[in-house]
Amino acid sequence: MEVSIIVIGDELLIGQVTDTNSGDIARMISPVGWTVRNVAVVHDDSDAIRNAIEQALSDTDIVLITGGLGPTKDDITKATLCSIFGGGLHLDEGVLANVENIFRRRGLQMNELTRSQAMVPDMCRVIPNDLGTAPVMWFERDGKVLVAMPGVPFETRHAFSQHVLPALLEHFPGRSVVEHRTFIVVNISESDLAGMLDGWEEALPRGFHLAYLPQAGYIRLRIDAVGENRNSLVADLNRLSSSLSAIIGDRIIASEDLAPEEILMRLLKEKGLTMGTAESCTGGNIAHRMTMLPGVSDVFSGGIVSYSNEVKIRALGVSNETLMAYGAVSEPTAREMAEGARHILNCDVAVATSGIAGPGGGTPDKPVGTVCIAIATPETTMCDTLHLPGNRSRVIDRATTTVLVRLILALR
Amino acid sequence: MEVSIIVIGDELLIGQVTDTNSGDIARMISPVGWTVRNVAVVHDDSDAIRNAIEQALSDTDIVLITGGLGPTKDDITKATLCSIFGGGLHLDEGVLANVENIFRRRGLQMNELTRSQAMVPDMCRVIPNDLGTAPVMWFERDGKVLVAMPGVPFETRHAFSQHVLPALLEHFPGRSVVEHRTFIVVNISESDLAGMLDGWEEALPRGFHLAYLPQAGYIRLRIDAVGENRNSLVADLNRLSSSLSAIIGDRIIASEDLAPEEILMRLLKEKGLTMGTAESCTGGNIAHRMTMLPGVSDVFSGGIVSYSNEVKIRALGVSNETLMAYGAVSEPTAREMAEGARHILNCDVAVATSGIAGPGGGTPDKPVGTVCIAIATPETTMCDTLHLPGNRSRVIDRATTTVLVRLILALR
Repeated sequence: MEVSIIVIGDELLIGQVTDTNSGDIARMISPVGWTVRNVAVVHDDSDAIRNAIEQALSDTDIVLITGGLGPTKDDITKATLCSIFGGGLHLDEGVLANVENIFRRRGLQMNELTRSQAMVPDMCRVIPNDLGTAPVMWFERDGKVLVAMPGVPFETRHAFSQHVLPALLEHFPGRSVVEHRTFIVVNISESDLAGMLDGWEEALPRGFHLAYLPQAGYIRLRIDAVGENRNSLVADLNRLSSSLSAIIGDRIIASEDLAPEEILMRLLKEKGLTMGTAESCTGGNIAHRMTMLPGVSDVFSGGIVSYSNEVKIRALGVSNETLMAYGAVSEPTAREMAEGARHILNCDVAVATSGIAGPGGGTPDKPVGTVCIAIATPETTMCDTLHLPGNRSRVIDRATTTVLVRLILALR
Repeated sequence: MEVSIIVIGDELLIGQVTDTNSGDIARMISPVGWTVRNVAVVHDDSDAIRNAIEQALSDTDIVLITGGLGPTKDDITKATLCSIFGGGLHLDEGVLANVENIFRRRGLQMNELTRSQAMVPDMCRVIPNDLGTAPVMWFERDGKVLVAMPGVPFETRHAFSQHVLPALLEHFPGRSVVEHRTFIVVNISESDLAGMLDGWEEALPRGFHLAYLPQAGYIRLRIDAVGENRNSLVADLNRLSSSLSAIIGDRIIASEDLAPEEILMRLLKEKGLTMGTAESCTGGNIAHRMTMLPGVSDVFSGGIVSYSNEVKIRALGVSNETLMAYGAVSEPTAREMAEGARHILNCDVAVATSGIAGPGGGTPDKPVGTVCIAIATPETTMCDTLHLPGNRSRVIDRATTTVLVRLILALR
């Protein structure tokens, strides 16, 4: 079953907002064996919307629309849907009740604009939007289905996963089987990995496909498999996964689709260890990435963002002498930061970063991108100096991932 | 001048990667008065790519392609471009030298796959890619221009801003004038703001448009203006900006397009104040958002991520009695965290968060989304309890933004 996604919004085409809805929908669709054939991003303009919809209805059986339904969008999308599917707009009591309900809960006043959200096209079936005021609308034509959803990402995710996808699966029964295996690979470039897997990839049976997904600091490698029979598909996938693992070896740090912080959290829980952070150039990003994970409190004690030298001394106990002799961006300082964090945070392992994220602060011997890292364990403290490419946010992101990966390799 | 953007990559259509390139390009294009008419995301498939290109070449004068050029993409895109513009592939010595250069710098081994990146279509002009191995390729047909760029976001941003956009501006001279004004508005809902601005928006002259961009915790409000004469356009825009500001009043915390952390950094520099953070439920995100800003070290001392109670006591000096009597998620604890941070980090102002980000940890009287915040200044300490909707990442993000906005309101 093929799907078209239409994303509506001027703000997306001037780059003020990034579309995450099409990706969220695609992630939920591919496991059921359906394919997103294309995504079109269009302006809040009736002609643009109509053309995109007609094209999509002729290309695919399912058309999913997000956006163009906010209280300040002047109902362009709804009017266009009426002109395509016929009928006019009427007030839907259920939607109105939902809008009033949400406003009451949030202690906000209703106004005409919000009330207009309860006007829906005659030809659609309304699907509840539990989290927002804009209705989800289901249209049908010549056996094809179009669903218009609000553009607010968490509303779209919820409405699609809880209501729209189940309704679509019921409407279009019978589908081919799809399976995936993802591997997280470190310490190798995409092209070296591709070279290493050349022969293996050549020999892949029909219905199997290898996808390279380079991230900052690691590679997500995914085998996609489509077939008729789940048991034989899984058997083949297991066989291929082990031959793949045998080739890549211990560069694989996980055999499922996990971010480094998740792999680290599991490893810490498995070993019953707690961790802490002492961050200078990463500025709290390591702690942030860890604490985005539910349940991390069992293993994450806390962290110190020692941005100024004074905080390095006062909060982490880094010695003034070390700072004077080697500077803040040095392996001796990173070492004392990590060991200080282990002590003050009273955790088993601690990581530290001190570097120059840029754009300013670089020197000939310590250019922008120079990041000293340290990992302190009960047994020992390891230090290293990284030279990372790119702008400030890339250096921070890359340093964060590298530290997480190094700690995984040190603990496993 | 109208532009089509084609984003190529299976990984985008299964949602493994989010497209940020089209947004980056759009942000650079709109200031010169050109419009992105649409964005199409398509598979690494010759037919899909060819159809999208032919459609785009018939719709608009400029077609920009990102992606489909990686070493593991089997040159589908290049072959398709040859089939459209004629000619075959040849080895480009300049591109080869660049690839070898990059590999030498990164200390990596060349292999056949990487060498294949130096093969380029006969009919294109090669534009240098300073940051990566995939070439940037410029094609022309019937007075229209197509430029194919690599998909790695920082390579695309750099190549487009430094080489492609300047070349396009030279190729298509003469354009209408575009100006923007952005306002950051807090403490009001999108629909209430829209109601408040109803009459003002009605009265907007031709060529002027108001865009609402709700973010988590604030609203970006942008006036877009297009005209022929910059001076008169700017004059009108200034007049409209002041009438808009008069209506919205002190709910405006900035009259340019700045994130709350940038507004706060400027305010702190202006007042010569330093700040620090004590974060529990936000887990370092406040420090992370601040330290993503270049030059923040003048005003940001550092932070403590006190995830465990032990760290609240040991690193921040929160009293055991307070934790026992009121619990970690309480205004008294948040107050002691903020005051403790001011002391240990030796900064002028400190913020603190303690809450339940979920999904676990909620109780009847303290459900998920309950976040206690405190702001400590030399004069006083303010506390409040927030009740935030949404999942873990939304609660963390929303709490972070709210704290930043509250500190701005307290200091200005």
